[in-house]
Amino acid sequence: MALEIITDIASLRARLAQERNIALVPTMGNLHAGHIHLVRLALQQAPCVVTSIFVNPLQFGANEDLDNYPRTLDADCEKLAAAGAQIVFAPSVSEMYPVAQTMCVTSPPIANELCGAARPGHFDGVATVVMKLFNIVQPQTAIFGKKDFQQLFIIRELVRQFNLPINIVAGDTQREDSGLALSSRNGYLSNAQKQEAQRLHRTLQLIVDNVQQGNHDYAAIEAQSSQYLTQLGWIVDYISIRSALTLMPANAEDKELVVLAAARQGKTRLIDNIEFTLS
Amino acid sequence: MALEIITDIASLRARLAQERNIALVPTMGNLHAGHIHLVRLALQQAPCVVTSIFVNPLQFGANEDLDNYPRTLDADCEKLAAAGAQIVFAPSVSEMYPVAQTMCVTSPPIANELCGAARPGHFDGVATVVMKLFNIVQPQTAIFGKKDFQQLFIIRELVRQFNLPINIVAGDTQREDSGLALSSRNGYLSNAQKQEAQRLHRTLQLIVDNVQQGNHDYAAIEAQSSQYLTQLGWIVDYISIRSALTLMPANAEDKELVVLAAARQGKTRLIDNIEFTLS
Repeated sequence: MALEIITDIASLRARLAQERNIALVPTMGNLHAGHIHLVRLALQQAPCVVTSIFVNPLQFGANEDLDNYPRTLDADCEKLAAAGAQIVFAPSVSEMYPVAQTMCVTSPPIANELCGAARPGHFDGVATVVMKLFNIVQPQTAIFGKKDFQQLFIIRELVRQFNLPINIVAGDTQREDSGLALSSRNGYLSNAQKQEAQRLHRTLQLIVDNVQQGNHDYAAIEAQSSQYLTQLGWIVDYISIRSALTLMPANAEDKELVVLAAARQGKTRLIDNIEFTLS
Repeated sequence: MALEIITDIASLRARLAQERNIALVPTMGNLHAGHIHLVRLALQQAPCVVTSIFVNPLQFGANEDLDNYPRTLDADCEKLAAAGAQIVFAPSVSEMYPVAQTMCVTSPPIANELCGAARPGHFDGVATVVMKLFNIVQPQTAIFGKKDFQQLFIIRELVRQFNLPINIVAGDTQREDSGLALSSRNGYLSNAQKQEAQRLHRTLQLIVDNVQQGNHDYAAIEAQSSQYLTQLGWIVDYISIRSALTLMPANAEDKELVVLAAARQGKTRLIDNIEFTLS
């Protein structure tokens, strides 16, 4: 079955009008095996899978990489076709924002922490475009990756607080053998940076081991880890041990935890996280 | 056919699961003939009409009449049954807001003018609850009254900017023989205030006549009308001649116009408007 590439909202609505069970995979394109994993999860959820490819200006800050973000539609479509996806929705900016988006969804307070601290307005932009995509596609299920753990958390809040009749399914982070989380932004890295980038996940794994061995001085662990990476040339935005249930800083009572990090190699900002449980 | 009164979201969703064409009439209850007119319009649009009755705390300011707003569910249901409506959705505050609503829809800049100038945050509260109701009911059509002209304008923007697959139908303002626009807040008026309240619509009609006779000094007309009502004991929030298409202050080129007013009799805030066309 050939992949259908649809670029306008009216055509997509017409195509989906008779579908009763749709799964949506929202992406910004430049698809890698992490995205394809989400598409495969979607195909398990619903007979009709829509993968959206849209580099959303609203979620980029003024000094971020909107203009340089890799746009690789032809290659993306080949990968989607190979994975058995049926429909790609790849709208232009003017199709998604024909007039200035003066009405937005505001994010909860947690959106100002972690990635939001360095990217003001980012999660408002994410929540707004996801709300639009949900209304355009009207899926029964939507798939998001756990690599963007804070985004996933905010999307679940969006669904809950706006009563969206949509089931959110989370896909595990896909990694290279080195442990490096797959990311479109890995393509910005030099060979030496990519070599060093592996250390981010290793550092998170060391933190998990440390906590699971009984060290609950989370502030000290965070500070030491951050200092360690900084000494190795990283610019660390944050390393934070949090409740996986609330995303608030973890305390001694929390058993469901996640350690999250964002750090830069040169200009390239990488994020990663590991969820874990204390017994 | 008996009126079905549903108070929880899960039951409403179950009831509506098999409906293919639904019209929603969002109200705050205390129904009068203006609301019933909207219900009749809804019945012309769809075989299944849901009237929501919910006094939305999010759209009331700290010093407004949330606590005193009339709640008359039994009488409302009698009127709806008589009109042939099928379903009332009357949720509690905790059903609509089981957790703090930390994610909201922000309104466009026009929301800070006219009624929004005196009611900061009001239209964010309206847009947020309407988005929630749309997601709960998933109607094909929703009916709003023209008496809340600015609200109607913002709801149309909500639908447009968030790609909601919902047709918005506007119902004409219903009036007493005196011209007074029907409003739940009319119930707050003393007999003398209600007598005086007629003047609001008469003043708007005089403005329309004045403009249609060729007076295009809108600022002067607004100032004179405001002064006139103030001298008669009104507290005037605004009288404004605007483009009916953009809600921006009208200029000489605009042909589709609306004159809007908000003014207080004692503590009771009344609004009204008249749309008109210049040939």
